[in-house]
Amino acid sequence: MINIAVLGYGTIGSGVVEVLKINGDSIEKRAGNKINVKYVLDIREFPGDPIMDILVHDVNVILDDPEVKIVVEVMGGINPAYSFVKEALLKGKSVVTSNKELVAKHGAELLDIAKERNLNFLFEASVGGGIPIIRPLNNSLTADEIVEITGILNGTTNYILTKMTEENLDFDTALKNAQDLGYAERDPSADIEGHDSCRKIAILSSLAYGMQVDFEDIYTEGITKITDIDIQYAKALDAKIKLFASSIRSDDEGVFAMVAPMMIKAEHPLYSVNDVFNGIFVKGNVIGDIMFYGSGAGKLPTASAVVADVVDAAKHFGKNIWTIWSSKKLELVEIDKVRHRFFVRVLKNKNSLNEIKSLFAEIEEVPNVIPEEYAFITPLISEKEMEEKKEKLEGFLGSIRVRFD
Amino acid sequence: MINIAVLGYGTIGSGVVEVLKINGDSIEKRAGNKINVKYVLDIREFPGDPIMDILVHDVNVILDDPEVKIVVEVMGGINPAYSFVKEALLKGKSVVTSNKELVAKHGAELLDIAKERNLNFLFEASVGGGIPIIRPLNNSLTADEIVEITGILNGTTNYILTKMTEENLDFDTALKNAQDLGYAERDPSADIEGHDSCRKIAILSSLAYGMQVDFEDIYTEGITKITDIDIQYAKALDAKIKLFASSIRSDDEGVFAMVAPMMIKAEHPLYSVNDVFNGIFVKGNVIGDIMFYGSGAGKLPTASAVVADVVDAAKHFGKNIWTIWSSKKLELVEIDKVRHRFFVRVLKNKNSLNEIKSLFAEIEEVPNVIPEEYAFITPLISEKEMEEKKEKLEGFLGSIRVRFD
Repeated sequence: MINIAVLGYGTIGSGVVEVLKINGDSIEKRAGNKINVKYVLDIREFPGDPIMDILVHDVNVILDDPEVKIVVEVMGGINPAYSFVKEALLKGKSVVTSNKELVAKHGAELLDIAKERNLNFLFEASVGGGIPIIRPLNNSLTADEIVEITGILNGTTNYILTKMTEENLDFDTALKNAQDLGYAERDPSADIEGHDSCRKIAILSSLAYGMQVDFEDIYTEGITKITDIDIQYAKALDAKIKLFASSIRSDDEGVFAMVAPMMIKAEHPLYSVNDVFNGIFVKGNVIGDIMFYGSGAGKLPTASAVVADVVDAAKHFGKNIWTIWSSKKLELVEIDKVRHRFFVRVLKNKNSLNEIKSLFAEIEEVPNVIPEEYAFITPLISEKEMEEKKEKLEGFLGSIRVRFD
Repeated sequence: MINIAVLGYGTIGSGVVEVLKINGDSIEKRAGNKINVKYVLDIREFPGDPIMDILVHDVNVILDDPEVKIVVEVMGGINPAYSFVKEALLKGKSVVTSNKELVAKHGAELLDIAKERNLNFLFEASVGGGIPIIRPLNNSLTADEIVEITGILNGTTNYILTKMTEENLDFDTALKNAQDLGYAERDPSADIEGHDSCRKIAILSSLAYGMQVDFEDIYTEGITKITDIDIQYAKALDAKIKLFASSIRSDDEGVFAMVAPMMIKAEHPLYSVNDVFNGIFVKGNVIGDIMFYGSGAGKLPTASAVVADVVDAAKHFGKNIWTIWSSKKLELVEIDKVRHRFFVRVLKNKNSLNEIKSLFAEIEEVPNVIPEEYAFITPLISEKEMEEKKEKLEGFLGSIRVRFD
């Protein structure tokens, strides 16, 4: 029997307890041992819940109990999760977490501590909910140099953009709708401003390129500026707007990373990732294009990924599972130099088509959705050039990056 | 340094040598050791090719060399691959293979031999080419009971069906096209009759349900009966026809498995898997729906999967990687009992709509593509019922199973 402790009895924590109950027999078979939840830590009480018998309010009960071999941290946030996790590792316990903030900020350090002590620090559930992506990056794509990871990594924003597209809603209505269904928080900024996606692409990039990618370095733009009119233009182009979290490596220039809305067409493997689903596209230099798709959030899918990590930790007592992620910092390419095509809207009465054409050399005109506007797609230009040209455009209404290849 | 031998210098074998060369440095880092190809076995000569220096024609040179720790079997076919692989394991070498026929037929036995000797028998490349699916089933989906695996597992048939759909080609022209491009063999029967998909779903099912699924037990129907008229009907329904390889488990009835063309709509995660790409949909009882997508064949993607297995074997010397696949035979549900909806075409002059309606109780009429035909979709009925009703339909032209949920 292997004793574990669950820190946090919220949605995911209760899901972990539930999954261990539902599939206990097959999990025991795969782990080679019965997994027993010895403690649940939470500051709250849960009267009538069977876990009341094992509920503790003091983390030291768990940290000081040598019988606890694996600590499952599903509280979220940096504090006190970071100190609990670090202390658990220092006391010889392997740790499994779903906490993307913790992993993005302190992953390299916690991996190092685990490695020194022949323990494991596992975090499959921190990105893509139930989708297996961390372990495939670590153990399956080992013959490849990764050259691109692009994900739809946030279910809330994908739901909002899907509703705006399918039901012609404006942003505020779609957000309200997501909040009513519990897909968005009352304070939705971490999702809609792209911060959640930013942490997740930082984790994936660190694992893919083997160096620390600091999430603070990643240019991040949310979906709050996307309007129902933008969506109409996208439809006129047979395109969709998705919140992409990308990192791309080229031999010449290095790695750039960015979270931003992107216009894509049906040829892109992520085009049909809708609603609250997530999708992660990976390109390797020999494997070519692959894509992983599934529930990016939700109680049971996320708990499934947490429990799979518990099984892996149980199978690897005394043996650290190697990852390529080192604490050496990866300096990202300056955002100014990154090149995209841009979909642009401007007011007709402020610009002539000739002026626009002479500014961008070559444009692809987009069928009009609003009679008072010109809409067009620029050639491939750098972010810096785009910024400069924006200044010169009178009546600039907005722009969205485009990936139509 | 770890010495390996490659059995077979065809497309995949030469790909393996190439991948080890292109990405040698990062592979060494991940494997913890340099991977050295000490021998290549082939009956042919390759004048001018650098591998001539290490080419051997006698497998015993490899089997008798204790320095060879991993044998890579990429010859294909059962004989002599089976005896070479078995002998290699018996001589204490781990084996990596891309050979779906070998794995489907002898996988359980070879896994047992590897297990007894603390070796590994790995076969990621046998299903889905470069797509990581074997390792995720084994190591990532360990918290779940798998309830369904459905794959588009054969690139050739997917290419033919895609061309029939996108370019309105008939079957023979699309097949010819695939042969000209090297996507289909001169004798294409293993692909177009579904035998290739059948072996692959047998492997995935054995791994998912933990018992031996014999490929001979799986009902298998290819795409040779699909006509350009069927494709036109599918388009009229906003649907596509895909060759599905499925196994589905229900608590009441057990597992059924089937390879057959299926009509699906855009809601299905495999709808946008086109051309030579493969996609594998997995449903777990807690993780929900996930999907893996990528190149199902091709020299470098397949070689990438083979080399990833070599890395895994190198990291697990003396330690068998556990799989759930046991040699105990899984008795599949009789095909007669399996239920689907069916798209059906009949000659108008032989049947009245009333007769059809009274035969099926309830039908969904399909807009006419051919004026002389009735086309409709049946309610959910068993294969046996469908067979019986077919007999009663005069001028029956064909049927295709439908999954519109």
